[in-house]
Amino acid sequence: MRDGTMTIGVIAPASRIPPDLPSRITALAARLYPARTPEIRFHPHCFSTDGHFAGSDDERAAAFQEMADDPAIDALWFARGGYGSCRIVDKITISAEARRKIYLGYSDMGSVHALLYRNGVERIAHGPMPADLSRPGGEAAVARSLAFLVEGRPDTLEPTLSPGVPSAAFNMTILSHLIGTPWEPDLTGHVLMLEEVSEYMYRIDRALFHITSAPSIRRIAGLRLGRCSDIPANDPDFGQNETDIARHWCQRAGIPFLGRADIGHDADNRIVPFGLWRGSGS
Amino acid sequence: MRDGTMTIGVIAPASRIPPDLPSRITALAARLYPARTPEIRFHPHCFSTDGHFAGSDDERAAAFQEMADDPAIDALWFARGGYGSCRIVDKITISAEARRKIYLGYSDMGSVHALLYRNGVERIAHGPMPADLSRPGGEAAVARSLAFLVEGRPDTLEPTLSPGVPSAAFNMTILSHLIGTPWEPDLTGHVLMLEEVSEYMYRIDRALFHITSAPSIRRIAGLRLGRCSDIPANDPDFGQNETDIARHWCQRAGIPFLGRADIGHDADNRIVPFGLWRGSGS
Repeated sequence: MRDGTMTIGVIAPASRIPPDLPSRITALAARLYPARTPEIRFHPHCFSTDGHFAGSDDERAAAFQEMADDPAIDALWFARGGYGSCRIVDKITISAEARRKIYLGYSDMGSVHALLYRNGVERIAHGPMPADLSRPGGEAAVARSLAFLVEGRPDTLEPTLSPGVPSAAFNMTILSHLIGTPWEPDLTGHVLMLEEVSEYMYRIDRALFHITSAPSIRRIAGLRLGRCSDIPANDPDFGQNETDIARHWCQRAGIPFLGRADIGHDADNRIVPFGLWRGSGS
Repeated sequence: MRDGTMTIGVIAPASRIPPDLPSRITALAARLYPARTPEIRFHPHCFSTDGHFAGSDDERAAAFQEMADDPAIDALWFARGGYGSCRIVDKITISAEARRKIYLGYSDMGSVHALLYRNGVERIAHGPMPADLSRPGGEAAVARSLAFLVEGRPDTLEPTLSPGVPSAAFNMTILSHLIGTPWEPDLTGHVLMLEEVSEYMYRIDRALFHITSAPSIRRIAGLRLGRCSDIPANDPDFGQNETDIARHWCQRAGIPFLGRADIGHDADNRIVPFGLWRGSGS
């Protein structure tokens, strides 16, 4: 934070971004914050290609390490989801400098959030990413993340968050794939919010079976269901919707089902800080 | 085993089967074994419907319990995969009678296999199911399972199996969804064979990240990759095939990659007994 303006680093631990995204994001930031425009630095690897990914595992991990360790950067904003952040979690070291920063993203970034949370990083948040700009109404999502990072505005937060109650939010498929690994987060006493996109209803059911069956997860304070969008048609019809399913598995597991959460793969996606939030001022 | 003929019970812990399947299966068994035709009893619930499933969870669990506890039945043959066996694993009690039987199936049945294996059942096998009859060349698959159940024929077995080395086989997505749950099998010292169907390459990569990252799984003797079939096109191209991926994750995890296994969602699917096989004679 130099002269009251924030420096935000952008990296892509999973898939690459289109080349015109940085100019669109920086133009939006300048329009929203003409007086104290945050500097937004897109790491060059964001446009790199290695098969599915924004560069090789080593290249993406090195970009993460470089920006996390750079004292001139206040926050790391993940460019987009896709797939691939689980491939770099064993290649990153969380330094004292890295521990000072804010981290913001969601979806596939859950693997990185888990790594950071396991390492005691205090300012991790689940929320919109630069690539959300391409969604219908996506400017509101990106503006929300900027308002969170730059101003720490409370109206950007998921409205059911409660002071004194730790929270965490994940894409349910990503959390399912972390269970039993060294990166599984300790969510004891947390309100856990889960969202999903583009999965069949039977897969939502299977992921919630998995998550709620793990004894480690049964120590949460309760579960809230975010939006499950773009669900392909099940043949035959699954016979239950996502709320029925979440309530069912919570009941079997003895986990309080707390209702819906205002998160998801959409423009309305509100921000969920992990744990007890320490504020976004640096 | 009455008068040297076997009684095989068929239940459907996941999805239902078409009504004409029993007559086609029993006709095939009569043609293959005219002298000692096995009696094949399809439990009525196999044709039941509750949304996605062959009857409600309670109905499917009760059918399992009933046939597992019936001393007149020598083997339980799972009718087909689909999805749903994970929903009944907490509703089944493994009795002394149940422990005596042979169990045969694959794919979604991995959840039931895991339950049985955790409970010390000695004769569990990964192999073709009645519904495989509808595949191209499926009669060979079903005949293989009958030859395994009725004759205990060694040429039905996966050819890399080695006496004295315990083995297990799973659909990789199903095993991934068991990790960290009370049903996760203890595969210490086992050769683990994994197959997949109809999953994008990035999902195969993600499932193998999960499986090979779990410290519990890292105690296996080695991993063999079965067939991964009907893989939808990845956009962009993933850049690695399933063998590259399996080798990659084994190398990262310090797990010996032992090559391919002759299993998969196809007519060639060979049979893999769990653990050290105790023979199919009853």
